[in-house]
Amino acid sequence: MNQKVRHIIFALSTLTAALSVHAQETAYKASTVNKPINIVNIASLEAQAEAQMQAGAFGYIRGGAEDEKNLRSNTSAFDKKYIMPRIMQGIELKDIQINTKFLGIDLKTPIIQAPMAAQGLANIDGELSTAKGMAKAGSIFSLSTYGNKTIEEVAQVAGKSPFFFQLYMSKNDKFNEFTLKRAKQNGAKAIILTVDAAVGGYREDDIKNNFEFPLGFANLELFAKQNGDTAKTGKGTGISEIFAQAKQGFTPADINYVKKMTGLPVIVKGIQSAEDADMAIRAGADAIWVSNHGGRQLDSGPASFDVLPSIAKVVNKRVPIVFDSGVRRGSHVFKALASGADIVAIGRPVLYGLQLGGAEGVNSVVEQFNKELRINMMLAGVKDIEAVKQTRLYSDKDFE
Amino acid sequence: MNQKVRHIIFALSTLTAALSVHAQETAYKASTVNKPINIVNIASLEAQAEAQMQAGAFGYIRGGAEDEKNLRSNTSAFDKKYIMPRIMQGIELKDIQINTKFLGIDLKTPIIQAPMAAQGLANIDGELSTAKGMAKAGSIFSLSTYGNKTIEEVAQVAGKSPFFFQLYMSKNDKFNEFTLKRAKQNGAKAIILTVDAAVGGYREDDIKNNFEFPLGFANLELFAKQNGDTAKTGKGTGISEIFAQAKQGFTPADINYVKKMTGLPVIVKGIQSAEDADMAIRAGADAIWVSNHGGRQLDSGPASFDVLPSIAKVVNKRVPIVFDSGVRRGSHVFKALASGADIVAIGRPVLYGLQLGGAEGVNSVVEQFNKELRINMMLAGVKDIEAVKQTRLYSDKDFE
Amino acid sequence: MNQKVRHIIFALSTLTAALSVHAQETAYKASTVNKPINIVNIASLEAQAEAQMQAGAFGYIRGGAEDEKNLRSNTSAFDKKYIMPRIMQGIELKDIQINTKFLGIDLKTPIIQAPMAAQGLANIDGELSTAKGMAKAGSIFSLSTYGNKTIEEVAQVAGKSPFFFQLYMSKNDKFNEFTLKRAKQNGAKAIILTVDAAVGGYREDDIKNNFEFPLGFANLELFAKQNGDTAKTGKGTGISEIFAQAKQGFTPADINYVKKMTGLPVIVKGIQSAEDADMAIRAGADAIWVSNHGGRQLDSGPASFDVLPSIAKVVNKRVPIVFDSGVRRGSHVFKALASGADIVAIGRPVLYGLQLGGAEGVNSVVEQFNKELRINMMLAGVKDIEAVKQTRLYSDKDFE
Amino acid sequence: MNQKVRHIIFALSTLTAALSVHAQETAYKASTVNKPINIVNIASLEAQAEAQMQAGAFGYIRGGAEDEKNLRSNTSAFDKKYIMPRIMQGIELKDIQINTKFLGIDLKTPIIQAPMAAQGLANIDGELSTAKGMAKAGSIFSLSTYGNKTIEEVAQVAGKSPFFFQLYMSKNDKFNEFTLKRAKQNGAKAIILTVDAAVGGYREDDIKNNFEFPLGFANLELFAKQNGDTAKTGKGTGISEIFAQAKQGFTPADINYVKKMTGLPVIVKGIQSAEDADMAIRAGADAIWVSNHGGRQLDSGPASFDVLPSIAKVVNKRVPIVFDSGVRRGSHVFKALASGADIVAIGRPVLYGLQLGGAEGVNSVVEQFNKELRINMMLAGVKDIEAVKQTRLYSDKDFE
Repeated sequence: MNQKVRHIIFALSTLTAALSVHAQETAYKASTVNKPINIVNIASLEAQAEAQMQAGAFGYIRGGAEDEKNLRSNTSAFDKKYIMPRIMQGIELKDIQINTKFLGIDLKTPIIQAPMAAQGLANIDGELSTAKGMAKAGSIFSLSTYGNKTIEEVAQVAGKSPFFFQLYMSKNDKFNEFTLKRAKQNGAKAIILTVDAAVGGYREDDIKNNFEFPLGFANLELFAKQNGDTAKTGKGTGISEIFAQAKQGFTPADINYVKKMTGLPVIVKGIQSAEDADMAIRAGADAIWVSNHGGRQLDSGPASFDVLPSIAKVVNKRVPIVFDSGVRRGSHVFKALASGADIVAIGRPVLYGLQLGGAEGVNSVVEQFNKELRINMMLAGVKDIEAVKQTRLYSDKDFE
Repeated sequence: MNQKVRHIIFALSTLTAALSVHAQETAYKASTVNKPINIVNIASLEAQAEAQMQAGAFGYIRGGAEDEKNLRSNTSAFDKKYIMPRIMQGIELKDIQINTKFLGIDLKTPIIQAPMAAQGLANIDGELSTAKGMAKAGSIFSLSTYGNKTIEEVAQVAGKSPFFFQLYMSKNDKFNEFTLKRAKQNGAKAIILTVDAAVGGYREDDIKNNFEFPLGFANLELFAKQNGDTAKTGKGTGISEIFAQAKQGFTPADINYVKKMTGLPVIVKGIQSAEDADMAIRAGADAIWVSNHGGRQLDSGPASFDVLPSIAKVVNKRVPIVFDSGVRRGSHVFKALASGADIVAIGRPVLYGLQLGGAEGVNSVVEQFNKELRINMMLAGVKDIEAVKQTRLYSDKDFE
Repeated sequence: MNQKVRHIIFALSTLTAALSVHAQETAYKASTVNKPINIVNIASLEAQAEAQMQAGAFGYIRGGAEDEKNLRSNTSAFDKKYIMPRIMQGIELKDIQINTKFLGIDLKTPIIQAPMAAQGLANIDGELSTAKGMAKAGSIFSLSTYGNKTIEEVAQVAGKSPFFFQLYMSKNDKFNEFTLKRAKQNGAKAIILTVDAAVGGYREDDIKNNFEFPLGFANLELFAKQNGDTAKTGKGTGISEIFAQAKQGFTPADINYVKKMTGLPVIVKGIQSAEDADMAIRAGADAIWVSNHGGRQLDSGPASFDVLPSIAKVVNKRVPIVFDSGVRRGSHVFKALASGADIVAIGRPVLYGLQLGGAEGVNSVVEQFNKELRINMMLAGVKDIEAVKQTRLYSDKDFE
Repeated sequence: MNQKVRHIIFALSTLTAALSVHAQETAYKASTVNKPINIVNIASLEAQAEAQMQAGAFGYIRGGAEDEKNLRSNTSAFDKKYIMPRIMQGIELKDIQINTKFLGIDLKTPIIQAPMAAQGLANIDGELSTAKGMAKAGSIFSLSTYGNKTIEEVAQVAGKSPFFFQLYMSKNDKFNEFTLKRAKQNGAKAIILTVDAAVGGYREDDIKNNFEFPLGFANLELFAKQNGDTAKTGKGTGISEIFAQAKQGFTPADINYVKKMTGLPVIVKGIQSAEDADMAIRAGADAIWVSNHGGRQLDSGPASFDVLPSIAKVVNKRVPIVFDSGVRRGSHVFKALASGADIVAIGRPVLYGLQLGGAEGVNSVVEQFNKELRINMMLAGVKDIEAVKQTRLYSDKDFE
């Protein structure tokens, strides 16, 4: 029977391939919309965004490494834990409070945005729209080194709203110094040092689509222009060429380098093992960001949610923990907080909101997470984020 | 391949969406039929009912919260336990007895009906038809606060047949007092106090269908009319607006309030944790109703059948236990009874029977459960409900 | 998405239902063929037989109880155990011996035929063809009480080949006596006393097809004719009416009754629990037949292969064990023998062979099992049935 | 519902069967191409090769035994183990080294080619192209006894590149002696003694396609010609006829026979149990080749990756371990090495590369594995093969 099914699927895939080649021939155009979006659920945004985007850009955003097992398990791992419904705790919906603090910053929600490259793919104003959306949501925007907007542009739209700068260290220390100083000067509240992408994961959609960035990376362009540097700055470049310019051999000393250069808190992003979490803290990390890059790097790695408890145990509250990878529901936020995270970051959903509604769409996405989180908290009988963190989750073992 | 499959499914879903919009434009009409129905199995009734109903009404009845994982696991959880075939116990089919007692009431079957709102969606006579059907089956009808018929109307058709009244407490204590007193005066045998719906679960079908109740809630309308109250009474109202009027901050004191107001037994419905079961009993509950609202509330919660044994253990026969959520087979009734339940309630199947056959259809549904239960009892070598409760179930661990 | 899929499946099922109603309107005709059949694998015979048979007859043969979970798990349970490939045992293919003995009868294969009713549905000569096929295969034919041929007819075609008689005890002891004496007189080598079918399982295909037997049960007809009895004898009768005439309240005393009446070995068929196995042996059973009636009775029961080891342990070689339910591969035969069975019975595959090739088709089915069994034995490094029984199987736990 | 689905699938399969019969009627032609191929992933090569090949030849290469459970589990078993992402190990991509040694031979990659019969099915130059491709990749080619080219032809194209000879022992000792001496004289570096194929597994594709080899086996033909032997030599012969001529009753003494006859290292291939590994080493094996013949023999056997750790434990570094069966990703190579293998062999992917790109295609396949392996090593923070072997893998149990 398998053979017959293969024949049928082969015929359908040939048809679809023909259609998708056709789609790629039209020129790239980012969305220009700015309006709140109706969201039934976060997962459904993906197909909506896909219908509006070029295959290459969509594939770059959606795709994961190799067979995308890690991409899928990041989300399905949450299903292994149950939230127990609780009643008679005397809590009114109006009592539910989801505000919290992170690195001394007041937030209206425990949900922040994970730094992501090339947001101009999703919206004509790219990172500036995202920053506005996150500000409206009362949360934090994080600018990627590979953003399509400069730190200065972001700082201007952010105004008093907090933002972080995410650093992909370059092999060129001049670039690192040039960029970190600008981040400091422009008011970034922390530096996110990404250490899990010394080489890009093997992402097949990018290979199938022969994807090249259609837009330049503003902070690389600025450095090149002001310093006469000839390195590639993004436009017309594949992702592997960009990674080739990045520093690869990270050591704990890099954490100290960034701290000294900026005097800002350093959040070490991309940690999956208890050993690395401990090493980073001992090297001076001010926060640990548990992430597997949204399943875009090591497809054979465990689900990010699966490793969170053992990391939380070794961190032992020495520094706060940010968690990302696979978060698509308010219940996922709840479970991550109840498993050791202090704050939860979302990635692709922000870009889908950006594509579909600009700054307002980004805010709509956070509001949807907030809405689901509040309902889950109410039904679990917990009234604030601190209480969520104290909640015991259940697994199948509890019911055997 | 995933991407191709997405394309195909997207095309199909667009087509289907177009068809379903069309269906919604026609006006709402409840069924008027009253006849026994041929049932192959309970699960197949859902598609039959769907084919006859408007999408919004059907979605409101069928739907569960968020991804409907809890809705599905409620039923699939039964598959984790096996009934061992037993032979040579000397039992004739005519010896099989399924009658039982609950709160002193004689029942011809261990299956009662779970209270459900807005039964006028399924039948022109709504709750009155359901009450007749349950009476014919020799069982109990339970009227929801949000029924489309008044307590008085139900009492009249029930006659000598027992019925319960289910209370969604209002923020307005006058309503609670007004309604509970009428329940008492009209002969309700017990009050079911639902405590797991302080806020509505996030049910996506209702959102997609933009569902509003097409009919008023008779007991709310009666109160509004007699007391000049201006609260919403159902018609043209979404479910979240209804829940907004309900009391949310339940405490054990509410159990006592209802007991004092009525002098009737109080069954606390919506319990999933051993802690809450114990708290309710200590606060005076006369029975515990283990339920997760049919998967309509906290999608991340465990399957109702999975939590039953640990609740039964802590209840330790102090009060009887009602069980619902996911029951679709006579074998499910058997397994719930063998896992600590004293009586088993069914929800959606009753409404599908109501839609397809009115009062007679409701009775047909109970008869189908009874038929399957009797066969399962015969093949398991147990002859009455007490023996079912003593039966040991098996799981995969027993065969490793 | 679920909803859209439901719509599509509903449309397809309506279409198919229309086609299948049409199929039923043509008159019943059994196959008349008698020739060896080409078999790729046993599982594929089902669809081949379905294409040739009326829906009702095919459904009666193929169907299982309720959701057919037990029907499926009976076969899938074998996948939980692995046969370890062994090399360098110095065995030639010509050394492989699959002959064995059961109740003193020499057999060319460890595979016998499970008694099944109404074999006239599959072949114009019904049980006579099956008996010829099993004789050619060097194995045992078992005649069901509800066969379409008499004991006398079977005895005549069997000649010197061994056959068993399977008894469904009647509520009418005269029938039991009349029939058992004829079995003895006509040379049956053993009586199979079926005790797991005191009531028929809830088989939905029979209900959907409104199935009635198109042919009479020869041994019931003979008794009715010779004794002026007016009980139903099969033709135009549904299966539940037949079961209603059968004895239901089995006790261990029934085993003794059959032994005394015939002086033949009594094999108690339909045992799934260690307790019942022990009870049957203590009551005088000469062999235990582990079976769940091919998933046709208690759908909530465990897979037959899953219960075999615990039964073998309690039997402890006091009597031999026959195993059936779910056997579709030579490897299944191997695994059953290695888990405590002394002999393995096959059911539906025999009837599919009978439909497709008559007596020769039945023999082809046994030969296919033999061929696969020999290859599996060779690759596992065991050369005879005794060695298969000593073989250790592995499970996932061994590789953790 | 099952029944409806069966009807639909039956209709589709009839259609497909008709199409595939048509495909078989055209004459056999091997590919003549020689060029590097673009590979998105190894798994996708199968469908590409299928589209170019005759059904019989493709089925012979792709197929596994019986239900192909073992074929599938060989690959899916790798998913049970996780590679932990590690950061801050200070490793640059340029530091990653994948060269290694096996039996004293320097290799540019830990990936060798598993011996496979009849490579002329995939390419007009058959084994000669494969040998060139493996030489280009800096690895080892292994010639099967049932190759379409002679040892002499292979030796000529191999030149200074290492090659092994795989022996299927014949029942005719003259053939064994004739062939082993030629292997020795022509410079084979080791003899692979296959012991897991004393009988062919039950491969259904070959039966369905009525497959016969369209080309002769060159080494059998050479022996027949020079010795006037009349045994079958492949062309127009089914696989079972070939196996019938092979020696079946292997004992440890055969290992010694091959060693004495050649003086070369003997690798015993086809071991799945710790007992057989130990027996082979004690009989003089110079290396153990853990393999289940790519799921082509005992479908009920465990996945090859599942048995590797227990074999590695008993081997305890006395001899090196080759691993094959199911390897389709660089991560699989990583996991096998981290579970006890010293070198990893690939089978079907080589033949798909051979079909699609000749010698260059074979090299492309190895390069794709190398590329993925390097990325996985970088992301796991290990820089050479020795470090891969020391890496601890994780499983779900670690995260409970």
